[in-house]
Amino acid sequence: MSKTEIIAEPGSPTIVMRRTFDAPRELVHRAFADPELLKQWMGPARLTMRIDEYEPRHAGRYRFVHIDTDGTEYAFRGVFHGEQGVDSAMMRTFEWEGLPGHVSFETATFVESDGRTTVESISVFTAVEDRDGMIENGMQIGVDEGYDKLDELLTMQLAGSVA
Amino acid sequence: MSKTEIIAEPGSPTIVMRRTFDAPRELVHRAFADPELLKQWMGPARLTMRIDEYEPRHAGRYRFVHIDTDGTEYAFRGVFHGEQGVDSAMMRTFEWEGLPGHVSFETATFVESDGRTTVESISVFTAVEDRDGMIENGMQIGVDEGYDKLDELLTMQLAGSVA
Repeated sequence: MSKTEIIAEPGSPTIVMRRTFDAPRELVHRAFADPELLKQWMGPARLTMRIDEYEPRHAGRYRFVHIDTDGTEYAFRGVFHGEQGVDSAMMRTFEWEGLPGHVSFETATFVESDGRTTVESISVFTAVEDRDGMIENGMQIGVDEGYDKLDELLTMQLAGSVA
Repeated sequence: MSKTEIIAEPGSPTIVMRRTFDAPRELVHRAFADPELLKQWMGPARLTMRIDEYEPRHAGRYRFVHIDTDGTEYAFRGVFHGEQGVDSAMMRTFEWEGLPGHVSFETATFVESDGRTTVESISVFTAVEDRDGMIENGMQIGVDEGYDKLDELLTMQLAGSVA
């Protein structure tokens, strides 16, 4: 059972994803903004992650690579828009280098309530077909498995901070 | 009568704009990519334009300001995604600094046929309300008046090149 709510209305170029984590906002935000943390959780369970560049600031670039067990690499790149602080939305463009030119724009917000933090991500695509292709390629599984790893990482960090 | 086709389906976060210019693709593309040309045509007729920065390359920044007759300034900023050559789509984020955080993603393609060039621009917004707000703020008039100026600029350039 997925713990991530994913909304993709038919005919719309948008994907909305929501997940709530048992951790304060600063901690969850840092897991997205710090590449040393990000590479520990992002992406499907069977893939490892290498981050070639990650500059979370206005006009900063990023490029990361998911690596399959047989060595196959899937590279993604984009640029950040705006300040990437915990109080503002994280915004960036997103392109899989295997399908160049099909670029989406992503926004992530971090809202805390009673010590838990809900991350809402909105991806918008230039064409509905691009959005549908992303879903058909198993995006949901990758997001879910990544967020499960993030759950564990946050639990470990919280356990460490109160130990 | 508008010469620009503008499509904004109800309930969708997308605006599609098309306009055909009597000029070859390289010339039309240059009018978008070269800030010295861009500032001669972009935006509503009554405003002047100042370009503070314009780096049409992957992760390049831009910031430009439209200035009203009474001196009021309207500033816009964003970052380019991808190579900005004539063969690839021009892609960038777009934010009016007067309404920070409401960012859209824009793609422009240049297709030539029989010596004429059709520019298709697609803007996608994170929320439908942002898209609707942009339309209510008179975006269409600004685009139309800007494209009319571009028509004149291209005519002058073509006249100059054959003189």
